[in-house]
Amino acid sequence: MDWKNILRSHIERKVDLADEQFDYIASFFKPMSFRKKDKLIRPGEPVHFEYFVLNGCLSTYVINDQQKTHILQFAMRTWWASDYNALYNQGQASLHVDCVSDAEVLCLANEDREKLCRELHSMESFFRWRSNGGYVSLQRRILSLLNNDAQSRYEELMQQYPELYNLVPKHLIAAYLGVSRETLSRFQSH
Amino acid sequence: MDWKNILRSHIERKVDLADEQFDYIASFFKPMSFRKKDKLIRPGEPVHFEYFVLNGCLSTYVINDQQKTHILQFAMRTWWASDYNALYNQGQASLHVDCVSDAEVLCLANEDREKLCRELHSMESFFRWRSNGGYVSLQRRILSLLNNDAQSRYEELMQQYPELYNLVPKHLIAAYLGVSRETLSRFQSH
Repeated sequence: MDWKNILRSHIERKVDLADEQFDYIASFFKPMSFRKKDKLIRPGEPVHFEYFVLNGCLSTYVINDQQKTHILQFAMRTWWASDYNALYNQGQASLHVDCVSDAEVLCLANEDREKLCRELHSMESFFRWRSNGGYVSLQRRILSLLNNDAQSRYEELMQQYPELYNLVPKHLIAAYLGVSRETLSRFQSH
Repeated sequence: MDWKNILRSHIERKVDLADEQFDYIASFFKPMSFRKKDKLIRPGEPVHFEYFVLNGCLSTYVINDQQKTHILQFAMRTWWASDYNALYNQGQASLHVDCVSDAEVLCLANEDREKLCRELHSMESFFRWRSNGGYVSLQRRILSLLNNDAQSRYEELMQQYPELYNLVPKHLIAAYLGVSRETLSRFQSH
């Protein structure tokens, strides 16, 4: 499927667009291809873009004071990823954003999103809806972190995102759940 | 300060409003007073409103499978609180929202926010900005949960929100940090 079709049906989940409107909107998005392990965002660097995933999978993570990797989120087809704190506030990244697999994404610059939102009420509406969705997804993530039962967190994850199982190496799923690779194997054999 | 002034200066942090516009917007907000320990949202019940805090402090929390309380967020003056997953998706609450102190809030119904956003591009813009801020605040919360060093999480919290120290009982600050009341006392004596 052509990237414009993927983007258009994604935006039209929330708002209807005339053809010329969509062409104008699409002109701000830049398709790019990345390879597995490529780094899109590194801590300490400025963040100018957010990424809309067309294919493949990105991960957003931190490495804490004890050098342990904690994965905040995976982003698959039609998900968005960035270090939004740094992007919105024009600060430096505190997160890593990497490619878990080869990936095709659309890049959107912060100032271009703002321009689209100013010019088109429908796009302001779309991006509000997108941000609300992101908020809810982070809230779910916090609830999952606070629920101590890793087995049920694993089952919940696999039920919500069955495609993760094939896209994401097992050690990253373990890092997302905050358990060892061995503990994850025990869950999988149940 | 009159509640309309608090609301207006909050909205005007992002967008300018004419007097008649603001009066129309304000007509959708309903001021209410609550007492310490009053419950605004309970798990399992439908969620119709979000709350804008004028005075006092609300807390948003879960009680996990082991009956342990985990506080997601405190909401103080000019902060918003709700179970947004339930509110946006018209589902049942999974969170508690309680009053940590006596509190004055403005209630806004979900359908009224949507009506305001449809009718006024400026309000769509305001609520997108508000939602972006909420997203960033949850992301900070996740990073704080994933950083194992509770002492530095405590210091960060007190630096960001010094007013918490007087507004919130110490056992709730401990529940927010995920440490015992005794561990919290050790941090405070440093």
